[in-house]
Amino acid sequence: MYGPGDVHVEEREDPTIVEPTDAIIRLAATCICGSDLWPYRGAEPVEHQVMGHEYVGVVQEIGSAVRTVKVGDFVVGSFWASDNTCDICRAGYQAYCVHRVLMGTLGTQSELARIPLADGTLVATPGQPDPDLIPSLMAASDVLGTGWFAAVAAEAGPGKTVAVVGDGAVGLLGILAARQLGAERIIAFSRHADRQALAREFGATDIVAERGDAGAEKVKELTGGLGAHSVIEAVGTQEAMMQAIHSTRPGGHVGFVGVSHDVAIPGDELFMAGVHIHGGPAPVRRFLPELIQLIWDRTIDPGKVFDLALPLEQAAEGYKAMDQRTAIKVLLTV
Amino acid sequence: MYGPGDVHVEEREDPTIVEPTDAIIRLAATCICGSDLWPYRGAEPVEHQVMGHEYVGVVQEIGSAVRTVKVGDFVVGSFWASDNTCDICRAGYQAYCVHRVLMGTLGTQSELARIPLADGTLVATPGQPDPDLIPSLMAASDVLGTGWFAAVAAEAGPGKTVAVVGDGAVGLLGILAARQLGAERIIAFSRHADRQALAREFGATDIVAERGDAGAEKVKELTGGLGAHSVIEAVGTQEAMMQAIHSTRPGGHVGFVGVSHDVAIPGDELFMAGVHIHGGPAPVRRFLPELIQLIWDRTIDPGKVFDLALPLEQAAEGYKAMDQRTAIKVLLTV
Repeated sequence: MYGPGDVHVEEREDPTIVEPTDAIIRLAATCICGSDLWPYRGAEPVEHQVMGHEYVGVVQEIGSAVRTVKVGDFVVGSFWASDNTCDICRAGYQAYCVHRVLMGTLGTQSELARIPLADGTLVATPGQPDPDLIPSLMAASDVLGTGWFAAVAAEAGPGKTVAVVGDGAVGLLGILAARQLGAERIIAFSRHADRQALAREFGATDIVAERGDAGAEKVKELTGGLGAHSVIEAVGTQEAMMQAIHSTRPGGHVGFVGVSHDVAIPGDELFMAGVHIHGGPAPVRRFLPELIQLIWDRTIDPGKVFDLALPLEQAAEGYKAMDQRTAIKVLLTV
Repeated sequence: MYGPGDVHVEEREDPTIVEPTDAIIRLAATCICGSDLWPYRGAEPVEHQVMGHEYVGVVQEIGSAVRTVKVGDFVVGSFWASDNTCDICRAGYQAYCVHRVLMGTLGTQSELARIPLADGTLVATPGQPDPDLIPSLMAASDVLGTGWFAAVAAEAGPGKTVAVVGDGAVGLLGILAARQLGAERIIAFSRHADRQALAREFGATDIVAERGDAGAEKVKELTGGLGAHSVIEAVGTQEAMMQAIHSTRPGGHVGFVGVSHDVAIPGDELFMAGVHIHGGPAPVRRFLPELIQLIWDRTIDPGKVFDLALPLEQAAEGYKAMDQRTAIKVLLTV
């Protein structure tokens, strides 16, 4: 990305093993993330920067210290490389690994990528996947893992009513996650017919078109005046965060994964709300083994969030489609 | 309280049963809360208002619908009257009961008090308490229950390092709670020798005098660079809240019970911190049976936070002592 709105696909030098814990993978697919739109729209600084942090592919080369992944393995990894052995990783917070490396700084919208801390970061699939599984495995790398984390952070589960703020790929997969985790009722906030349809397919039982406090009021109406037990916030704006907090009953849980932009939570409102809040960059690595198995067994089909697939060379078109909301999420084939 | 800094003790009409679910209690003691200092200092509006929301005493009269408390019972209640039967109460959030009544609006810095929803609100002690147990039972009504909730919200427990922001009565009793809940290490932020001594007596293993980010840095130094697992915020200011968040390791828990004043939590900092936040007015009723038993068995002695006892008539002196920090917490004998 040369600058806001300005995406080029160009030849670069092949990545090489730098640390003995690195692996080089040949990507089977990559994709464009909702968070890539922040710099694209000028809301985050960007200047001639490699892009992409989602990836699936085949291991092409490993460093001398790599033990658990082999050349030829089909692997999925997350947007934070992590050692998976430090105290923070072992507590399930691999996105905060003491040795973490942000994959976005290396770039995975490419044919080849260097993956640091390969043993901790990469999870191999049970075998070479059928081609139709690739989009779902791709989703596991970020949007599914992030939606799943949001649902776990919101403590979605049996007997719970879950509300989901945000009908982008992460919000939609938060619905899928809440359903898998056993939620009784799932309320999706959405105004777009195509996203509403996918929300219902993933498990939403109710759709609310209202936003902000009007949306929160609607959730209260649907829940005997109390609010939802669990609310997922997958947008990152002030309105979305307050809508999430106000939609949650006292003692309930907000799981937030929208990358915060100009959000400030008033302390007195949080104090009076009595909700739990937890979120941030998802520790996708925690969930990868489970998610890969669910996809492998064809129990879930999160790849449906990709409603446009383009060859990598047409990445600029993909950014445009997501920016203009003509696509929910764009898969880039390599 | 006629206005900021202006406290009078005067004769008022005796309270009477209004609803059939009411009880009238004769107070054995009452006390002044840290939160009473906000209006006293002019930080909250106040105009000729009854004061007090903490109470222990003997049931003198009950309404026709009261079933579980009897005339003559010695009882402890919380600052929110609650039915203890609604969905919110049953989830353990009695401070948000759908029928809740704020005791501060009725006033318990008095000889007699009307307690709404007596069956749900009041917990009887196993018998008439020895006089030396009264301060501890009094503490259970608010400061102990609040400190306990903060420790539970922060998920203090075995193997955990807990840091406590705030060395007032609630913070000190948060230390006691963390100790009882099995915390391995307890770091108290304090600059006052007398409070440091009580903190150590209640179970603090480390004292940190630094505040704000310097204080958070110190906690990180003490925890291998990671931060505490659990942090209690018992102040309610911006500095205290951010100190708490910055002292917590990713995936850790902040339990906040300081009444928020002009606090705004930046969304991006919360996002990047990866902590859990939970707090608000404590559902003290959830913990009362357990706390009363611990006090009755003389396992804990939370009454030590009262370092000044005055007769009710001298309430104005008590407010002054707490305002000027010459007392941690003032017991008013009735």
